[in-house]
Amino acid sequence: MTTAIRAAGWRGVIEAYSDLIGLPAGCRPVTLYEGGTPLVPAPGLAKAAGLDVDVRLKLEALNPTGSFKDRGMTVAVSAAIHSGAKLIVCASTGNTAASAAAFAARAGIACAVVVPEGKVALGKMAQARAYGARIVIIHGNFDQALTAVRAIADTGAAALVNSVNPWRIQGQMTAAFEIVDELGSAPDWLVLPVGNAGNITAYWKGFREYDAHLGQAGTQTRPGLPRMAGFQASGAAPIVRGQAVPNPETVATAIRIGNPASWRQAVDAATDSNGFIDEVTDEEILAAYSLLASTEGVFAEPASCASVAGMLKMARQGRLRPGDRVVLVLTGNGLKDPETAVSVSAGGAVECEADVASVSRAMGL
Amino acid sequence: MTTAIRAAGWRGVIEAYSDLIGLPAGCRPVTLYEGGTPLVPAPGLAKAAGLDVDVRLKLEALNPTGSFKDRGMTVAVSAAIHSGAKLIVCASTGNTAASAAAFAARAGIACAVVVPEGKVALGKMAQARAYGARIVIIHGNFDQALTAVRAIADTGAAALVNSVNPWRIQGQMTAAFEIVDELGSAPDWLVLPVGNAGNITAYWKGFREYDAHLGQAGTQTRPGLPRMAGFQASGAAPIVRGQAVPNPETVATAIRIGNPASWRQAVDAATDSNGFIDEVTDEEILAAYSLLASTEGVFAEPASCASVAGMLKMARQGRLRPGDRVVLVLTGNGLKDPETAVSVSAGGAVECEADVASVSRAMGL
Repeated sequence: MTTAIRAAGWRGVIEAYSDLIGLPAGCRPVTLYEGGTPLVPAPGLAKAAGLDVDVRLKLEALNPTGSFKDRGMTVAVSAAIHSGAKLIVCASTGNTAASAAAFAARAGIACAVVVPEGKVALGKMAQARAYGARIVIIHGNFDQALTAVRAIADTGAAALVNSVNPWRIQGQMTAAFEIVDELGSAPDWLVLPVGNAGNITAYWKGFREYDAHLGQAGTQTRPGLPRMAGFQASGAAPIVRGQAVPNPETVATAIRIGNPASWRQAVDAATDSNGFIDEVTDEEILAAYSLLASTEGVFAEPASCASVAGMLKMARQGRLRPGDRVVLVLTGNGLKDPETAVSVSAGGAVECEADVASVSRAMGL
Repeated sequence: MTTAIRAAGWRGVIEAYSDLIGLPAGCRPVTLYEGGTPLVPAPGLAKAAGLDVDVRLKLEALNPTGSFKDRGMTVAVSAAIHSGAKLIVCASTGNTAASAAAFAARAGIACAVVVPEGKVALGKMAQARAYGARIVIIHGNFDQALTAVRAIADTGAAALVNSVNPWRIQGQMTAAFEIVDELGSAPDWLVLPVGNAGNITAYWKGFREYDAHLGQAGTQTRPGLPRMAGFQASGAAPIVRGQAVPNPETVATAIRIGNPASWRQAVDAATDSNGFIDEVTDEEILAAYSLLASTEGVFAEPASCASVAGMLKMARQGRLRPGDRVVLVLTGNGLKDPETAVSVSAGGAVECEADVASVSRAMGL
């Protein structure tokens, strides 16, 4: 088992899991020491679910650009550089754009990101701009953006780093490895948001391959496999509906996708793991968002909170049993979308003069 | 030497360094698995400095609430709970508020934060609101906010968790321990922003105590001590000027402080380490901010970039020698202040129709 050391010695996912990622020999990692994210207990959420379950949160917001995308991006950009690419392109609802722009900057090559108009969270646009990417805002949705960049990449003019690029999946798998390393075996359930469906694809591949890998190594008990529970937002739930959604709408902008590129793989992950893909409403997502921050002290972007809302729904439906170990993947940082926080948060602000008596009164003392 | 394992086994700074932090027996950690942050190479900044120096970035943005404050807050809030506190209070330019609110939420107790009007970055307010803190906005500056909460804490009505609370310093020291663990010894220079001066105080204490600790252990070479280089923003540089600044002004809102609580300790750290405290202008800070993001792929809040601007100034002044190992502390996440990024970034955005030809043209292909 990999004993991945972050504080002293952690050098990112490629170094930690090179044998399983399988980049070509001589490919030099472009890395920000991504991965190695904490898996923290969430007893308050277990209590809210009303069950004696062991809930853990995989804090993917603590990757360098604030989302899980960095795991795959380090691998995809490293491979692109190795192949001689001079331009990185992607379609994005924001997180992929931020990650691609950061790793392209670190590698010293150009990056262009294509985003749908109107619905990319403020922080993500700020990131892509800061990293120096060229931002193309289309009069259309994510699915159209992906179609365009695929066509451009097919001409050979640029390297595509969306999750249809297999290297992205090879990197994103490492989150599954880390969870097994941390728990000593697979959890009973892995709960995560589903947008373009690259992440559920990567986790399922990761759990299967790590189980096989550790089994082959023969030095320990195999970790087994979790059941996969994926949640879409009700306004962007093509897999749940069984048909593409032409105009997806949800407050969870990171999963505002109507025709997922990895649709088939997501269904396979759910089916093969004896899991499922379901939906949660925007109201459930926002309630979960507030609950998560105010009870666990964890501020995640709305899309991430589909995991939390989903776990609560599973509890209501009787899908969880006492003692179950449930890992919720929190895909991105709440700071990426400050406007949502300000608009929905209960925590109030009051103004007052600067003297002690006024401040004391304002605190309710 | 502590071999702190983050991906598998990292449980935050209290567990990693309990013997050096010294919380009372029986004090249960309130933790979000903070600390264990990456120390990444920055060859692009070394190149920009025009010197053959080994520059590393301590990415404190990858703490749970996006700043270094979490290291001290886990300790201060754990101690407060142990002492029976029912309310946590602090004055803040934003990062302390976010951190205090998060750890109070995790501990299940109330939190009130006092911030100066007008100049707290959007993301930090969003965090404090999301975590459920009561936010008191005063018609005054940070220094007045601190005066008020100190008076309130003195009545016994609340536990103060500003860096005048010694437990904060005990926790923040751990960043120095991690740097030594990572490098195998102290760097030649430790460069960091100076606002209220708690952090330079904590780093210097940490390097000294870790050197003594490892020396006592006797099992290895002592790590030695770095020279400390602290940088204030020119519009908020009381230590450089030798007098308090009544109305501090800088784009680096996190260090917009005119009368630092740990002024004397900061001067001692600079003097005793054969270092110095100097200033950088807002123009230098913003230039460093763009350079850092676009060459290293690291997006830090403006105040953090006082470290980068400071290192470049040191290079110009001939303070750095070939082969020097220089650690720049990047205190907080750029996502905390998205508005600055959007206003200063060079990276441009263009709009176009969704078809392939239009997107291709917009990319300049």
